[in-house]
Amino acid sequence: MENEKSILNTGLRGVTIASTKISDVDGARGKLVYRGYQAKDLAGKISFEELVFLLLYERLPKDKELKQIDSDLKNERGIPPELLSALETRPRDALPMDILQAAISMLAHHDPDSREYSREAALRIALKLIAKIPTIVAAWERIRNNRKPVKPSPDLGHAANFLYMMTGEKPDDERTGFFDVCLVLHAEHSFNASTFAAREVASTKAHMYAATAAGVGSLSGALHGGANTRVMEMLLNIESAEKVDEYIENILNSGGVIMGLGHAVYQIDDPRALILAPMSKKMGERTGNLKWYELSKSLEHKAKEAFREKKGRDIYVNVDFYSASLYYYMGIPVDLFTPIFAISRIAGWAAHVIEEQFGGAADKPALYRPESDYIGDYCGAEECSFVPMDDR
Amino acid sequence: MENEKSILNTGLRGVTIASTKISDVDGARGKLVYRGYQAKDLAGKISFEELVFLLLYERLPKDKELKQIDSDLKNERGIPPELLSALETRPRDALPMDILQAAISMLAHHDPDSREYSREAALRIALKLIAKIPTIVAAWERIRNNRKPVKPSPDLGHAANFLYMMTGEKPDDERTGFFDVCLVLHAEHSFNASTFAAREVASTKAHMYAATAAGVGSLSGALHGGANTRVMEMLLNIESAEKVDEYIENILNSGGVIMGLGHAVYQIDDPRALILAPMSKKMGERTGNLKWYELSKSLEHKAKEAFREKKGRDIYVNVDFYSASLYYYMGIPVDLFTPIFAISRIAGWAAHVIEEQFGGAADKPALYRPESDYIGDYCGAEECSFVPMDDR
Repeated sequence: MENEKSILNTGLRGVTIASTKISDVDGARGKLVYRGYQAKDLAGKISFEELVFLLLYERLPKDKELKQIDSDLKNERGIPPELLSALETRPRDALPMDILQAAISMLAHHDPDSREYSREAALRIALKLIAKIPTIVAAWERIRNNRKPVKPSPDLGHAANFLYMMTGEKPDDERTGFFDVCLVLHAEHSFNASTFAAREVASTKAHMYAATAAGVGSLSGALHGGANTRVMEMLLNIESAEKVDEYIENILNSGGVIMGLGHAVYQIDDPRALILAPMSKKMGERTGNLKWYELSKSLEHKAKEAFREKKGRDIYVNVDFYSASLYYYMGIPVDLFTPIFAISRIAGWAAHVIEEQFGGAADKPALYRPESDYIGDYCGAEECSFVPMDDR
Repeated sequence: MENEKSILNTGLRGVTIASTKISDVDGARGKLVYRGYQAKDLAGKISFEELVFLLLYERLPKDKELKQIDSDLKNERGIPPELLSALETRPRDALPMDILQAAISMLAHHDPDSREYSREAALRIALKLIAKIPTIVAAWERIRNNRKPVKPSPDLGHAANFLYMMTGEKPDDERTGFFDVCLVLHAEHSFNASTFAAREVASTKAHMYAATAAGVGSLSGALHGGANTRVMEMLLNIESAEKVDEYIENILNSGGVIMGLGHAVYQIDDPRALILAPMSKKMGERTGNLKWYELSKSLEHKAKEAFREKKGRDIYVNVDFYSASLYYYMGIPVDLFTPIFAISRIAGWAAHVIEEQFGGAADKPALYRPESDYIGDYCGAEECSFVPMDDR
């Protein structure tokens, strides 16, 4: 293949490998589109439940359809008592993303739909995963703090219910609204690493639980979803706005990276960050503590300046940069930031698994099976000859 | 990119995306090479433990080194009692591959090495996974049959110990030897779907447990590792050699596939199948029942003939075709065939995760993040305009 060299060991960056009807990311223009609609036009106007309908059924729901999916999701929020028993066996210091990956695999054990290979079964599993992942994340947060998990409330929407299950207290409308916008903004982003992992697993005809567990594993990585937790750890570490200059200088001198800056696709500020930043500010004002927002803002400006001056290039904020302080203001534990990403992104993963297995041009998936170039040893010959133990 | 069209929606088939020092697959010549050595030259000459050393440390071990890795693996065979408790909570009819994926995620909860991003920690996790996966598979086989798991025996090698933990009886030398050859032959196969999934997850800097769980998910698919179970189900379904003609005709007429025939890479008989076939025959002779071997042989010959005549092309046996009857003769439950694939393939997955994260040219992984081509709706405009609920 002619351009083999250009794609070798580059993580397929810039290589178009598949067509999709789910989303469009225009990195140059900073545009993120879900099923034809710009994400920024949907944020604040539709609930996460409405977005789930859009992603799974390819159009915005009518009133009756929204009520139906809302009710379906509510009905599926519970998790099997045996799964709670399994979570009780887990070491209390286990990382929430590691717990989530295991719990998603375990959901398959309870669901006969995991043995049916059909679009209908996949759609049913999609709703179950979207409904149950928040319950799992909240249950683990309670269990690890030696508190009883809180049962989902049928009176609350998806966003409010998660906050309620996590804290035991019903959140007010503003907090709920902000969290809902976060869920809408994180739900889908084309062939990002976790979605690609989920599609890759789905391409073998594995079920959606197996594929989603792969997505969660990928999202847990520091270079992917794990970044939002690391942004907050960085902010806590910098601690005050006066130390920003010193921090940036140290990073630039040591060749390190500033978490939350830079993106594999966007060559301009992430459209999601532009919505999240003012939300962080508002939530900071509300809690009477603008420190983390202002520290973020200062870090953004000074880092951009430093990159232009010292590296001769621009750097931009990504989705993780302002979601960190926003979640922190909302009282969410720092190591739950990435699981919250998963609570939202499951909508995109599910849509992609269905597209990989049942949508698109071919009726069966083209198993992802790339080639590699062997650059290892051949013992200077056609191949290595076996050497018995005594002669080594 | 010039050749975008040629790679769009083809599952990256034939596209060389990375260099590797681990293995070489020459599909045209039917050659499989592990770190310079042909797999067929190693099968029967080295134990699985020796192969693990070769794959992880890039050369065959000296006597002392082999004794060390053998002892290290033996020391790591036990699984935490809390993990056994978690397995006890699982529904008895859960699929073994689904159990394995969950259990591998759970191993991370118990291992502080999962929080250390270093080659040394990754190598330690590799040995733990290689040692513990057989224990998990055997424990589940016992638990689902309401029997007590059998503790690993320090007197037995890797192959014999698994068979012992599964059945409670120490296997004889021939059975052990055959199983060891199976483990050696399935251990590694470059960028197959499960290894690619594991590397993909590892490229985000996620730990090896998360990456391996993705590999297990991918391997569970019917188009990948799940195929060996399906070969046996097909043989049991055909039932007798007289029905082979009818079966092939039905498959060809319905446009179906014959399990165990055809491969993404090999354009000639799979070199592993050529070793497995005579082993199946010998084990059949030993059990006094050649039926499944002979049925396989007849199916192979007649299918090859039918493909040439009716489809005008050749078709070849892959690794799953004869491993099915061989495992069946060895008394292994049919739905454990794929977990046994994982017991072996973990050696390759681990080597690839380490190469992805710490080997190769760059010191940090190039996160796999391909592009996709949006072919969805834009409502006939630049983009869809948001329509409020009442106007839909």
